[in-house]
Amino acid sequence: MREIIVAAAQMGAIQKAEGRQQVVARMMALMEQAKAADADFIVYPELTLTTFFPRYYMEDQGEVDTWFEAEMPNAATQPLFQRAREYGMAMTFGFAELTPDGHHFNTSVHVDKSGAIVGKYRKVHLPGHGEFDPDRSFQHLEKRYFEPGDLGFPVYRTLGGVFGMCICNDRRWPETYRSMGLQGVEMITLGYNTPSVNSQKSEEGPEKRMFHSDLVMQSGAYQNSTWVVGVAKAGSEDGHPMFGGSIIVNPEGEIVAKAVSEDDELLVHTCDLDDTVFGKQTIFDFARHRRIEHYGRITAQVGVELPPEE
Amino acid sequence: MREIIVAAAQMGAIQKAEGRQQVVARMMALMEQAKAADADFIVYPELTLTTFFPRYYMEDQGEVDTWFEAEMPNAATQPLFQRAREYGMAMTFGFAELTPDGHHFNTSVHVDKSGAIVGKYRKVHLPGHGEFDPDRSFQHLEKRYFEPGDLGFPVYRTLGGVFGMCICNDRRWPETYRSMGLQGVEMITLGYNTPSVNSQKSEEGPEKRMFHSDLVMQSGAYQNSTWVVGVAKAGSEDGHPMFGGSIIVNPEGEIVAKAVSEDDELLVHTCDLDDTVFGKQTIFDFARHRRIEHYGRITAQVGVELPPEE
Repeated sequence: MREIIVAAAQMGAIQKAEGRQQVVARMMALMEQAKAADADFIVYPELTLTTFFPRYYMEDQGEVDTWFEAEMPNAATQPLFQRAREYGMAMTFGFAELTPDGHHFNTSVHVDKSGAIVGKYRKVHLPGHGEFDPDRSFQHLEKRYFEPGDLGFPVYRTLGGVFGMCICNDRRWPETYRSMGLQGVEMITLGYNTPSVNSQKSEEGPEKRMFHSDLVMQSGAYQNSTWVVGVAKAGSEDGHPMFGGSIIVNPEGEIVAKAVSEDDELLVHTCDLDDTVFGKQTIFDFARHRRIEHYGRITAQVGVELPPEE
Repeated sequence: MREIIVAAAQMGAIQKAEGRQQVVARMMALMEQAKAADADFIVYPELTLTTFFPRYYMEDQGEVDTWFEAEMPNAATQPLFQRAREYGMAMTFGFAELTPDGHHFNTSVHVDKSGAIVGKYRKVHLPGHGEFDPDRSFQHLEKRYFEPGDLGFPVYRTLGGVFGMCICNDRRWPETYRSMGLQGVEMITLGYNTPSVNSQKSEEGPEKRMFHSDLVMQSGAYQNSTWVVGVAKAGSEDGHPMFGGSIIVNPEGEIVAKAVSEDDELLVHTCDLDDTVFGKQTIFDFARHRRIEHYGRITAQVGVELPPEE
């Protein structure tokens, strides 16, 4: 057995006017709860430190950059890093990253129990659009404010196992899980900010959207025999509702813990990394069963190539 | 709207002693029901014409070959082809294919309303093992009796849309759906013979196994915005139970029809191929969102490559 106690730290709404210090105080309150539950590892959502700013259309790059972090840790997050180290608790969280050479990414880091950053991921699958879209009921400008991640889907050894990350919309793409599955990943952590209504299809509400969110994490877990921990930022941010439904999924694809609120809420589950072994050695023993000679389109073409007309 | 009426024709058990003519008579009885429901298209399961023979260990290739079809249509299936043509009903079904040059495949064909074979698929992901395995509670010798399919994942235009097929264990692999999704597939049909108990994990019974079966078809449908029609051969074949649970899944990943028995049972649903359009143009608009520069491992490596030891 390689058991670790995992705390999924769902965050409720963060209003536009809230500062990072207020948010970090809330993160530390969840960390206190996690400590009381003996957690080894706490998982916070995507873009944890601020409201989900890609819903706002901005033309001034200086204004855009106020939502980004030029260093990590920085003054606002230093107390969080310090507390985690004191508690001997590993953590992941997401933030908007501005690199020294001026690149913008939607990023997450995995910090180990000693406070060292042992994993870094930059979101590959950016949803939404790059210019103001008058046909949407609200904007989703990730393609405007971020570049696609340039690190691929790295995994890293920590906490006695093989870990990886992805972010929000990445979870809908089977390529995400498979790229890490091919590196033997045993636990994938991810955060999301997902509006409760489809901006292009108003009849698609939170129930349907949470079904999709669960479905892709469950199948990604099962098909790669890995734990998946998916953590929401939820609630209504300045009138924009996002669903909660944070989940911990076992390597059989079963939901073993699920958030019930749209507020700050902690889920705790003891995850045995050895539960990944059976699937990896039998039905999903890739070396015995995958047939890459027939997968060529997956890496050879980006979009659809239709068959010839009749 | 591009509506077609689809009939999923689940088959109950076929005992080892049953002949192909008995089976074809049952298939035709289901076709009568489908005709009464005005079906355009009837979908039969994997290896429809016989019992699921890969559970039996055979050393004599002559005996093995008695389970294969050297021609299609042949004498046993000719009445089925003729009836389908009279009814103007398209169909798919699976069978063990012996080619003129001696190759063995687990195959399915799609026959159009005029009786022409417009699509052919050979199972790519063969589960199980190639030699007798004394550690299993029963044998699953597909790797012994079949070669992996050599046709890839072709799609074809028929019934006013873009169709594709896969078979049984293929449905658990996201590469299967994606390879067809990248060709604009609008409906994937598949059949399966899935034991109710995991031969390597006796506590994994039919409830868990049907959950996995549903999960992978639902996520494959959603992630490629395609209809999926999955049809079981079910029931107890000479004491070997297989679960039913045939389903029709819409392009949102929702189950819209599900079999309740383990017998011959027909599900009928009107499927609008235009329901695939919204997903393909928005969240799963591959051309805008896929990042093939980060998917390299999917086609470059068959098995797992672990990260370096710490």
